[in-house]
Amino acid sequence: MAPKSVQSIPEMPAGDPKHAARATRTAGRQMRSRLLDGASRLFKERGLAGTSISDIAAGADAFPSQITYYFRTKEALFVEAACRDMLYVARAAEQAALKAHTPRDYTRALVESVTATDSVAFFAEALTLTRRRQDLAPLVERTVGRLHGEGLRAYAGQIERHGWNTLRDPDATSRRFWAVAIGVMVEGHAMGRSPEELCSEMLRVLGEQATTKPAGDGARLRVVGDRNASASDSPDRETSS
Amino acid sequence: MAPKSVQSIPEMPAGDPKHAARATRTAGRQMRSRLLDGASRLFKERGLAGTSISDIAAGADAFPSQITYYFRTKEALFVEAACRDMLYVARAAEQAALKAHTPRDYTRALVESVTATDSVAFFAEALTLTRRRQDLAPLVERTVGRLHGEGLRAYAGQIERHGWNTLRDPDATSRRFWAVAIGVMVEGHAMGRSPEELCSEMLRVLGEQATTKPAGDGARLRVVGDRNASASDSPDRETSS
Repeated sequence: MAPKSVQSIPEMPAGDPKHAARATRTAGRQMRSRLLDGASRLFKERGLAGTSISDIAAGADAFPSQITYYFRTKEALFVEAACRDMLYVARAAEQAALKAHTPRDYTRALVESVTATDSVAFFAEALTLTRRRQDLAPLVERTVGRLHGEGLRAYAGQIERHGWNTLRDPDATSRRFWAVAIGVMVEGHAMGRSPEELCSEMLRVLGEQATTKPAGDGARLRVVGDRNASASDSPDRETSS
Repeated sequence: MAPKSVQSIPEMPAGDPKHAARATRTAGRQMRSRLLDGASRLFKERGLAGTSISDIAAGADAFPSQITYYFRTKEALFVEAACRDMLYVARAAEQAALKAHTPRDYTRALVESVTATDSVAFFAEALTLTRRRQDLAPLVERTVGRLHGEGLRAYAGQIERHGWNTLRDPDATSRRFWAVAIGVMVEGHAMGRSPEELCSEMLRVLGEQATTKPAGDGARLRVVGDRNASASDSPDRETSS
């Protein structure tokens, strides 16, 4: 997902210390990014245990010491690469879903995009690792916060733009999307399921998120509205339990 | 969950080969079960990497060779222990939820029971492992099949017994329950969440499963019924997408 092209490190301009510091920072960021790209690729292919620091260094044309300089441990690099990958996938899914004109097409576009990659399984592996490496929890915490925040913003934006009726609290809808994605993917990958099978299972488990407001169907629309406002089934009751 | 008490192996009766064979089978089953109990406890506490075959053998008063005899590898024992644990937890959750008289109490009882243990996280770790160890996939496949089958049967039974209105296809409801459980638990454990936090996040993400049929509220009831039967929001459409 969005692998940065490997750029040559700009030459240090002699004489101006401010320029030199900026060039060093840029070079450092580029090397960091290159290591993350290469690490993502190898980790997704071979897993944490099957990938060594020297494999990653060799793949990114770097020294092993550069990896420990930037990331300290292989586990920290694993978690950072997985978190970055997950945010890329979430953004790519939202981009792919922008063209959708109905709630069903929107959900389908998101699910197709997400199930076509290994990134959710990679992220779930990083979450499992972090459970026993709580020193890495802050990065996971920030990533999950962004995932939910950006998911909520994107979904609320679509609802607003198209005038859809969301069937429940948009925040709970977005959180459910990612919880279901992780659950279905962890289970399905263990059983060797194909991306197509993962996609249809995820759609089935997710169910409907929102309904359209079809023209001239005001009566049905009010029924949906009444239902959302009824004491036994309001979005508030759903989320307060 | 339901750890079998360690029973002494019955003495071999001399003379009758059929009795002797039965006694040997019983002793074998007991040893297997004792090893699984001990392995579950250690794996949940220390994870796969932090537990050795000799730790498990020592904890179960057995020889390491008995572990390789019954389970072949540490990974196979890990996956079998996690699968067995998950089915125990699912059954205990259904037992705990039997007393519930409303759909909300039912869901809450299930969620409280499931989030109070480490078993879902243990199972998720086994699923992650199995992704790269497809020789272990058949056991996972059987476990997931039983989990979904028993979950569907229990949920459909409650719906029938109490006359609740399920908001969607019971099979999708049961599959969603476990997908959300895995997703929320994997994420929450990585961030060091408490059982209470996991419980309220899971309830929030799950939302409402079913509604009661309150006495004297026939009008509202029909609205819910109409909604389920409407073209834009039927359980069939939800699951066929």
